[in-house]
Amino acid sequence: MDSAALGYSRDAVRGDTLAVRFQRVRAASERLAAPLSPEDQTIQSMPDVSPTKWHLAHTSWFFETFLLKRFAPGYKTFDPQYGYLFNSYYEAAGPRHPRPQRGLLSRPGAADVMRYRAHVTSHMQTLLRAEQPEIAALIELGIAHEEQHQELILMDIKHVLSLNPLKPAYHSGAAVRPMEVAALRWSEYEGGLREVGHDGGGFAFDNEGPRHRIWLDPYRLACRLVTCGEYRAFIEDGGYRRPELWLSDGWAIVSARGWEAPLYWERHDRGWQIFTLGGMRTLDPSEPVCHVSYYEADAFARWAGKRLPTEAEWEIAAEGIPPAGNFADSGRLHPARAPAREGPSQVFGDVWEWTSSAYAAYPGFRAAGGAVGEYNGKFMANQMVLRGGCAVTPPGHVRDTYRNFFYPDARWPFGGIRLAEDA
Amino acid sequence: MDSAALGYSRDAVRGDTLAVRFQRVRAASERLAAPLSPEDQTIQSMPDVSPTKWHLAHTSWFFETFLLKRFAPGYKTFDPQYGYLFNSYYEAAGPRHPRPQRGLLSRPGAADVMRYRAHVTSHMQTLLRAEQPEIAALIELGIAHEEQHQELILMDIKHVLSLNPLKPAYHSGAAVRPMEVAALRWSEYEGGLREVGHDGGGFAFDNEGPRHRIWLDPYRLACRLVTCGEYRAFIEDGGYRRPELWLSDGWAIVSARGWEAPLYWERHDRGWQIFTLGGMRTLDPSEPVCHVSYYEADAFARWAGKRLPTEAEWEIAAEGIPPAGNFADSGRLHPARAPAREGPSQVFGDVWEWTSSAYAAYPGFRAAGGAVGEYNGKFMANQMVLRGGCAVTPPGHVRDTYRNFFYPDARWPFGGIRLAEDA
Amino acid sequence: MDSAALGYSRDAVRGDTLAVRFQRVRAASERLAAPLSPEDQTIQSMPDVSPTKWHLAHTSWFFETFLLKRFAPGYKTFDPQYGYLFNSYYEAAGPRHPRPQRGLLSRPGAADVMRYRAHVTSHMQTLLRAEQPEIAALIELGIAHEEQHQELILMDIKHVLSLNPLKPAYHSGAAVRPMEVAALRWSEYEGGLREVGHDGGGFAFDNEGPRHRIWLDPYRLACRLVTCGEYRAFIEDGGYRRPELWLSDGWAIVSARGWEAPLYWERHDRGWQIFTLGGMRTLDPSEPVCHVSYYEADAFARWAGKRLPTEAEWEIAAEGIPPAGNFADSGRLHPARAPAREGPSQVFGDVWEWTSSAYAAYPGFRAAGGAVGEYNGKFMANQMVLRGGCAVTPPGHVRDTYRNFFYPDARWPFGGIRLAEDA
Amino acid sequence: MDSAALGYSRDAVRGDTLAVRFQRVRAASERLAAPLSPEDQTIQSMPDVSPTKWHLAHTSWFFETFLLKRFAPGYKTFDPQYGYLFNSYYEAAGPRHPRPQRGLLSRPGAADVMRYRAHVTSHMQTLLRAEQPEIAALIELGIAHEEQHQELILMDIKHVLSLNPLKPAYHSGAAVRPMEVAALRWSEYEGGLREVGHDGGGFAFDNEGPRHRIWLDPYRLACRLVTCGEYRAFIEDGGYRRPELWLSDGWAIVSARGWEAPLYWERHDRGWQIFTLGGMRTLDPSEPVCHVSYYEADAFARWAGKRLPTEAEWEIAAEGIPPAGNFADSGRLHPARAPAREGPSQVFGDVWEWTSSAYAAYPGFRAAGGAVGEYNGKFMANQMVLRGGCAVTPPGHVRDTYRNFFYPDARWPFGGIRLAEDA
Repeated sequence: MDSAALGYSRDAVRGDTLAVRFQRVRAASERLAAPLSPEDQTIQSMPDVSPTKWHLAHTSWFFETFLLKRFAPGYKTFDPQYGYLFNSYYEAAGPRHPRPQRGLLSRPGAADVMRYRAHVTSHMQTLLRAEQPEIAALIELGIAHEEQHQELILMDIKHVLSLNPLKPAYHSGAAVRPMEVAALRWSEYEGGLREVGHDGGGFAFDNEGPRHRIWLDPYRLACRLVTCGEYRAFIEDGGYRRPELWLSDGWAIVSARGWEAPLYWERHDRGWQIFTLGGMRTLDPSEPVCHVSYYEADAFARWAGKRLPTEAEWEIAAEGIPPAGNFADSGRLHPARAPAREGPSQVFGDVWEWTSSAYAAYPGFRAAGGAVGEYNGKFMANQMVLRGGCAVTPPGHVRDTYRNFFYPDARWPFGGIRLAEDA
Repeated sequence: MDSAALGYSRDAVRGDTLAVRFQRVRAASERLAAPLSPEDQTIQSMPDVSPTKWHLAHTSWFFETFLLKRFAPGYKTFDPQYGYLFNSYYEAAGPRHPRPQRGLLSRPGAADVMRYRAHVTSHMQTLLRAEQPEIAALIELGIAHEEQHQELILMDIKHVLSLNPLKPAYHSGAAVRPMEVAALRWSEYEGGLREVGHDGGGFAFDNEGPRHRIWLDPYRLACRLVTCGEYRAFIEDGGYRRPELWLSDGWAIVSARGWEAPLYWERHDRGWQIFTLGGMRTLDPSEPVCHVSYYEADAFARWAGKRLPTEAEWEIAAEGIPPAGNFADSGRLHPARAPAREGPSQVFGDVWEWTSSAYAAYPGFRAAGGAVGEYNGKFMANQMVLRGGCAVTPPGHVRDTYRNFFYPDARWPFGGIRLAEDA
Repeated sequence: MDSAALGYSRDAVRGDTLAVRFQRVRAASERLAAPLSPEDQTIQSMPDVSPTKWHLAHTSWFFETFLLKRFAPGYKTFDPQYGYLFNSYYEAAGPRHPRPQRGLLSRPGAADVMRYRAHVTSHMQTLLRAEQPEIAALIELGIAHEEQHQELILMDIKHVLSLNPLKPAYHSGAAVRPMEVAALRWSEYEGGLREVGHDGGGFAFDNEGPRHRIWLDPYRLACRLVTCGEYRAFIEDGGYRRPELWLSDGWAIVSARGWEAPLYWERHDRGWQIFTLGGMRTLDPSEPVCHVSYYEADAFARWAGKRLPTEAEWEIAAEGIPPAGNFADSGRLHPARAPAREGPSQVFGDVWEWTSSAYAAYPGFRAAGGAVGEYNGKFMANQMVLRGGCAVTPPGHVRDTYRNFFYPDARWPFGGIRLAEDA
Repeated sequence: MDSAALGYSRDAVRGDTLAVRFQRVRAASERLAAPLSPEDQTIQSMPDVSPTKWHLAHTSWFFETFLLKRFAPGYKTFDPQYGYLFNSYYEAAGPRHPRPQRGLLSRPGAADVMRYRAHVTSHMQTLLRAEQPEIAALIELGIAHEEQHQELILMDIKHVLSLNPLKPAYHSGAAVRPMEVAALRWSEYEGGLREVGHDGGGFAFDNEGPRHRIWLDPYRLACRLVTCGEYRAFIEDGGYRRPELWLSDGWAIVSARGWEAPLYWERHDRGWQIFTLGGMRTLDPSEPVCHVSYYEADAFARWAGKRLPTEAEWEIAAEGIPPAGNFADSGRLHPARAPAREGPSQVFGDVWEWTSSAYAAYPGFRAAGGAVGEYNGKFMANQMVLRGGCAVTPPGHVRDTYRNFFYPDARWPFGGIRLAEDA
């Protein structure tokens, strides 16, 4: 899916007013749902996944709860029961429907949710022109929040559709022509006492700051991502059958779940096939490997005699690379790219890159006050940081300081691998 | 729901041709689905429950697999993948989609399933006029099979809707006016050497025969069903907290699942409310108690100093009572009835009555040959027999020899209680 | 293990005084534990299994609770906490340690339990001479109860030892020499209106009565048990891979647990080996198959074109056969026997024979009053009846009316197969 | 338990030869098991816990596998099956008995294991005098490994005994007299570019190095541990009922497991009681809180308006504090201590102190080669670092660079809390 499908253009995302950006994000979510039937939008394929219409409603609930109810005089709640149904995890916003049961809700239906969206969008118009900084900051947060859910809509529906033996496609797909893969080159970094983290200029999530000093030993980063072809060699070398390559927890999961390849890979007589948003197609050895867990990324790196980068190493390398650069003209989900210049390529917008850093608070971190303080901080345990964004991340959403995080066994995110080594 | 809602009239179900009855059963299933949105028809609320559109497709698959593919020259399968998706449990009919995953299928959608139905219904027309007895017998079976699924559609959607905090109603409900409950009278039966089971005249499932002799000691049956008011007294007497009233397996389940009342009962400040196909409403103490498990039926009987009847005791008592008699004018799901005449009332069409008989083969039972031989026999373990039909059983479907069966912990069937005692 | 190992002789068990029999049963339990280390006596290998020292303590608790505390003036409880630890399932006797946690109790140790036993045995002496019928009846029950636990001690320790990769033996075993297996002959029975169940003369458990009439159609019973050789042919014919042979619940369990043979069978390069109380040894094709579940017994019968007998069919056939007959001189656990005379052989004391009868109350059944009323009745759901006793059943314990019962998936009892068919 | 009970004296642990230290560690393990019956030594109370005799055997297997089999000419394995039974997690050392099934092994019995120990100890004598550095290094590792298991023996048996309703004591306990608790003072640290990690002089585990630079902002550490009294105030303030205090994963576990206090705390009518190795006793508000999970430590810190230290912050503060200092004269498990001097007290040997650092490889970390390379590295996911040792850690075992690690929900380790804050 290229950015056009989301209704964005690369230039448009810079410098627009809040009102314009609000309108655009609302419309983009709805365009994402357009190819999906009411039935598609209803299914929860595992507890981690939410139905499409739940995402559409929850992002509206966010604006309703944290903005309309607080700042819009006389605002009348669309439906008082929606607060219970569409609160995700905000304890301070009251009780809520259990996450694993989101797929039990046939009502409100997809059309009802669209009415809810229209109601919220329309009532937000006044607030969009408000001048209080708190309101503007919350709208910024709501927009960034909805962008996150746009990615989740695609991540989740891919999982839903993949479990259907009919293997239905979300969109018509794109022609895939394997490209030549450039030899693996390395970019070297000096290390030393450096600064990482967001400095507070412009929007960022609270977990990206504060900016702080960190010591780095010299290191090298691969100039491109690990390809499917390289990962296939790992599989063919017995990668999934050799415990010495794995973290202990990872090996336990490989054994218990019978993993033999990344999620969405299927071994057919005619070779590996993969399930994509465009349906089943032949694996392209030149494209970045995707839908691996942290455990698989770590095992691959060990097999290759390398390691994963820390998030600080990644961030230093990404400094100054324009985040939207990789995005505009992609005609396929996971473009393979030969490194186009000095320095790492495929940094933003291909696959999320697993780092070896556990998700934790930066020194001096303080969660925001109120319910939105639950946005990030309370998840700082047991998860690993990923960096860089993926092909279904909305343009303009990521930054070099952006920290995504998932449990190390998660495979339904678009997670891939960039290797590192000590210099 | 009265029988009119199913498109039946009491007279119509007798004496019609197979073709007419086929047409009627197909149309009735579709009318049952009419009030449901595509989202409603997609959800599987627990492994025992199937989505509405799955029922609609599976009943078509039955005709396609056991009739069209075998007997219709040149018949072209509607979609070769549907055989995998819509086979329920027929091992001989090939591999199939796992039952607990029926709720993961957004495709085919509800509209696709209706096209599949139309295709099957239309191609069946020729076979409806065929003269081979084997074909007619299989069509009879297919009709009875679809009638069973009509009841399941309503049982299952009730469960689906009940789990939604919005408590949506399937239909508009009916006014409920508590009636006076007649004192409990008893009908006495002599026992002796009797015969039970189907004698082979007219359609019956294989598990209803062969007709065979059985010795019965004299016994008495309650002339009416246990009411909600009586069951409420059991609750108020600590019924769910007294292990001595329960079978050991039942007590383990009461404790593990925290049962405190029948399924669909909710204790509110203003008294017990129950969820029905017409939505939430106040409990009517005069209506028969429903949605109890075998364990609860058995515990209630022990509390009352009585016992449940055996299926043979029930069948002897039901002999000669017209099965459709209770059905025509019901304006509510669970009508309470004072015994209208000598002999038991509420025998057919109110609630399925749990018996103390484990579901087992009758002496001399032989399962039918081929795949349809899997219809009944292989379930003869761990289940208990229920008799009599319930308010959502299609008219004309049940008989005095009819054997329904469920696991003793099942509460989503419309199961209720009739007491018995030794004479 | 022959009966001598239990300290019984065939003649001794008849006609002795209650005092003599009490003394004998207490001593026999202790002899059973003698070959076991304190460590062996501590382990609970699954929730169904109890540690040996728990059995030794619980059988003492039974006498202490239902006799000493009620009838022995001034009796001082050995340890007040033992009531909590060693109550099995008597709700009326107060709260108790959860069954799945019996293996967490290192204290009281095996030696402590022996002191408890000595204390109870010694204080029982006075009551053994009491003349109240209630006391005598409870002592009879206590003796029968302890005999049941003697069998459980051996059933359970076999399971415990089998899970140890060292495969330790309980006793030194016996030489096993395959015998010739007689051709399968059938005994035919007329059926008609018959009586079954205990008539109240002499001791019996409450579930064996009342004696009652039952109609039986003519039938035939195999004159001997199914052998391991015959069962091996079922395995080799794909018995565990053919769903059409299995009850639906059975097939689900075969698939989920990966069953491929009876419990304790291991396929080695040199053929089938089985684990016995005498350790691992080569399977003897002439011995009765043992450690099969009801599901396996049922599937085997279907494969053989036969069926299992009902418990009434079995009981009629067993009438007049002396229960202790098969027992005295067995030098091995599962002797294979050619039918020695007209009529069925191997009826008592080889393997428990699965019947097709669900465990249920006989007509007119009333559970005993008080806590001992929980002995049998509350288990009358979901279990199947087995008849005849097995090689580790204490001599004198079983009768033709004796009803054993287990869940249909239980394989650790000594359960085997006798075929039946309609005449 | 004071160090005398382990047979150590503070002076003795320094400067002794390898042979002396080997002999001492072997004897100390056996003294730890001495108060335990064979039954006690057999039980596995949860998958994380191992039976005492398993620990005794496994530590011998370690010397046998990595030293005797490789370096002792003509060494004959004690029992070839022990390799399977007593390998813990070394994939390279071959297949092994599943960890959750260690409690199923009644054989080898406790006495057998002691014979195994004697055999290994005796054959090690020659190697103790060998001069190859590789051998000496492996013996050092084996000693440190056995010391770790000494702590595990006590951690595990405490859990085993705690689940017994008889609440048996491991030892006779010590008189507990609440002391006055000093006001909480803080030690301040400048931070800056510092070095942490082991520098390679003397024995250390591989995960303690390499020594590396790290940037620290100025911070303060509490001069003493959080007391039971302070933790009780957290409980009384609703700490276990307020989701805003908890990490999301922690709150899910609090809810699912019903946590209301630290492990081993019991609320009685007369106040909190705790289970200790000396049995049940009244909680002493002046002693350090123990047996809390990381989640509880983190929630307490948030409630207190503070945070947990990072492991680097802890290590910098611990530099130069003699590790054995707190140990010698403790007459109780968890002595409460007023800070005795400038700087933090209770640093070593009271409770393990949870840090906010996820357990990860230090920059430049390389696991050792061969099977012992599995010792630490493969556990570097999902666990949190604890520092400082506890009252049952063998004297001489810990260092300021020592890294212990457990999953954040683990409560059976002796884990406690030291607060930190930004300066």
